[in-house]
Amino acid sequence: MSTTLAPGPVYRADRTRVTELNQRELERFAAHTGRSKALLDRARKVMPAGTPMSWMAGYYMHPQLYVAGGEGARFFDVDGNAYVDMNVADLSATLGYGIPAVEEAMVRQFRNGAHYLLPTEDAVVAADSLGRLMGLPFWQFTLAASGANTEIMRIARHITGRRKLIVFEGKYHGHIEETLVKFDGERVVPEYQGLSGRRSEDTIILPFNDLDAVAAALESREVALVLTEPALTNCSLVLPDPGYLEGLRRITAETGTMLCIDESHTFSFAYGGLTRLWNLESDFITLGKGLGSGLAFAAYGMTDAIGDHVEKHLDILHRRPGIGLGGTLYGNALSMACARAVLEHVLTEDAFNRISALGSRMADGIDAICRDLDLPCRAFRIGPRSGLCLTPELPRNYAEARLSMDLDMLDARRVFMANRGYWDCIVSAGPQASFAHGKEDIDGYVDLMHEFMNNIK
Amino acid sequence: MSTTLAPGPVYRADRTRVTELNQRELERFAAHTGRSKALLDRARKVMPAGTPMSWMAGYYMHPQLYVAGGEGARFFDVDGNAYVDMNVADLSATLGYGIPAVEEAMVRQFRNGAHYLLPTEDAVVAADSLGRLMGLPFWQFTLAASGANTEIMRIARHITGRRKLIVFEGKYHGHIEETLVKFDGERVVPEYQGLSGRRSEDTIILPFNDLDAVAAALESREVALVLTEPALTNCSLVLPDPGYLEGLRRITAETGTMLCIDESHTFSFAYGGLTRLWNLESDFITLGKGLGSGLAFAAYGMTDAIGDHVEKHLDILHRRPGIGLGGTLYGNALSMACARAVLEHVLTEDAFNRISALGSRMADGIDAICRDLDLPCRAFRIGPRSGLCLTPELPRNYAEARLSMDLDMLDARRVFMANRGYWDCIVSAGPQASFAHGKEDIDGYVDLMHEFMNNIK
Repeated sequence: MSTTLAPGPVYRADRTRVTELNQRELERFAAHTGRSKALLDRARKVMPAGTPMSWMAGYYMHPQLYVAGGEGARFFDVDGNAYVDMNVADLSATLGYGIPAVEEAMVRQFRNGAHYLLPTEDAVVAADSLGRLMGLPFWQFTLAASGANTEIMRIARHITGRRKLIVFEGKYHGHIEETLVKFDGERVVPEYQGLSGRRSEDTIILPFNDLDAVAAALESREVALVLTEPALTNCSLVLPDPGYLEGLRRITAETGTMLCIDESHTFSFAYGGLTRLWNLESDFITLGKGLGSGLAFAAYGMTDAIGDHVEKHLDILHRRPGIGLGGTLYGNALSMACARAVLEHVLTEDAFNRISALGSRMADGIDAICRDLDLPCRAFRIGPRSGLCLTPELPRNYAEARLSMDLDMLDARRVFMANRGYWDCIVSAGPQASFAHGKEDIDGYVDLMHEFMNNIK
Repeated sequence: MSTTLAPGPVYRADRTRVTELNQRELERFAAHTGRSKALLDRARKVMPAGTPMSWMAGYYMHPQLYVAGGEGARFFDVDGNAYVDMNVADLSATLGYGIPAVEEAMVRQFRNGAHYLLPTEDAVVAADSLGRLMGLPFWQFTLAASGANTEIMRIARHITGRRKLIVFEGKYHGHIEETLVKFDGERVVPEYQGLSGRRSEDTIILPFNDLDAVAAALESREVALVLTEPALTNCSLVLPDPGYLEGLRRITAETGTMLCIDESHTFSFAYGGLTRLWNLESDFITLGKGLGSGLAFAAYGMTDAIGDHVEKHLDILHRRPGIGLGGTLYGNALSMACARAVLEHVLTEDAFNRISALGSRMADGIDAICRDLDLPCRAFRIGPRSGLCLTPELPRNYAEARLSMDLDMLDARRVFMANRGYWDCIVSAGPQASFAHGKEDIDGYVDLMHEFMNNIK
């Protein structure tokens, strides 16, 4: 299904040097994380893999770390080691730890009541702010982007009367049965174990940046929703071709298909997300991860027509079944107070300009490493996000992007960085300048990447 | 499918008096909620139905209220009216508003970092506490019971290699496609609009308290999981027959089927939930709604064997697909700090004894109303939970329980109560003594119920 043409030759560091470095760094890592090891032994008696959600143990290969605290974009493990997180908690804390404006709102609201199962004025203000920022007028709130995308699917299915869904290879849209899928060469199957498989049948997976493939799939008018990030962010980075997202908007509109732009990650790329930066149009926008505050809330926006439809198909408890939306804690007063504070005080245009400049600085530094070490590589760059692209040209889809995900090298880099006070939280996403990073954090990271690449070339 | 035999004659209040009272009370309600009305007009321009999640507008028939603050088990609307919530935010705030021990933990952790995507010692302590309290040794954390039940289903399907699920009529287990279903007389279909319908095919719905029906459904060995509340709490109240839950444990074990006891609501009925009170055995236990703290977190417990299985089938990012568990904010440090504080400082055996005494006082008061007004009715009673049962005998299943859900009467009661400072949050669940109620709150509510029933008999 995917194109197998590589965007130029792929750089592969020396395997022996990568393996040896990784081994050396793992030994060094173990030597200064003894208290984490002791806590893991205790934790494994009460939680699978010793973690409160088992995936925390599954995204890196070195021994488990336990955290004692944090400050800015830095956290401290129980052995007293400090780490600058270069993708703070997978962007869920990209605003930085302990932001006073959010703390103030959180404490005030907690004292007044975290949740009433009734709306507060904060919700009105937050929805209004989001509308002005993102360009879609109606908003709903959930606890995570998974919940937002679930509701968007239900609304789209109800409006269109269709069942199918299109997503793109390299996507991640939350822990939803329909989107936790892959194409196995013949058909769409669950991507993880334990999934029912039933709803995989409704999902179509296509390569990103291939409008013809989407147009062909939309022809039968069976697709309710096209769900996509504006740039793929979970498999290194894939930017849309010029006109691609506009084309998606056009062909979805022509075929009565709804389009959702999932900005759970890309919201942090630019003020108002890529939607505002690129002036995108869509039926729905998804936002997640507490907009980077570290709190659990998410949101989705919709057009006037969809907002009106949702209001007309409200579920009336025990009287009239409506569209299946909501959860007891969705839109709780605490999360709405924090959302308002984040939007009013933290996510300013100035702050985005600052992190974009840091992102450019990081990308420039990575490009300089490639020149200096004569690597046939280049930097990823968009706003605060950068990273090392292992091909001379940027990838246009997942098949090309995965060439830059040299897992052995990334594992070695992660533990190399960790031993020197930097944390590559998710090796396949980031590094990214957070709202709490300074120039010295970025420069230190680039210096270490230079040293690392020099060690393994 | 359900038995249609009523547990004795059903009491129905005079329809004319109910309708007239409801109309009078609605006029009175509108007269003192002018600011809520003004805020609704503003809110409807940015959120469907003017609420941050539309179901907030769908569980009552009077105009929308907007909340300005709260204290204890009381909230204040934007017009300055106060309400004692008799089922605080659908039990999600049943510990009461602004609990100092939780605030202290929340603020400390927020300053130290709300989320690292790495575990903290609080998680180990909270999991250990839950294990000792509930009797299952291994724990995982999510943001809501919906997420917990989703993961339980995935684990059960993976372990058993089977796909089907049994739930019981009158159930609610979260906003999951498989459980948002009903039996339409011929087959299982989605309960709400916009659901895909695919996964309904895997769900079997049976009446509660009918072991023979479960045994028959388990015979084919196709069922992965039986998911049940220990008492049905979302359709007034249905208690299990003596031996029913023990029988469920026996026949599920005999047929290699997993059993999950969903204590999202019933955790608040007794110290250690009904699992501890009744010494129940199961493979999984679900807990939800931040254990009543108002914060968004949930948990599930599992046996040794299951914990071991989960650890062995961990998802290793980009390397080995495991069971599809986790979400970026699941088990975040902020929620783990709050969970620990709630378990250590708030959910004490003494506190449960206190609310159980209040629950008995309420049930005694309701029984006295029935005698005094000569109604062929009685109180529901279990721990802090009570309510008015409209049949002389208690219901044994949903078909019988729904007889007590006289929606017209309940709508009238809700607005009658609201006009007098009491809030029947969810008319089909509660009233229930919260950790923040005092005797005077309970007595005031019972007095009003007496007046209300006298008005409509």
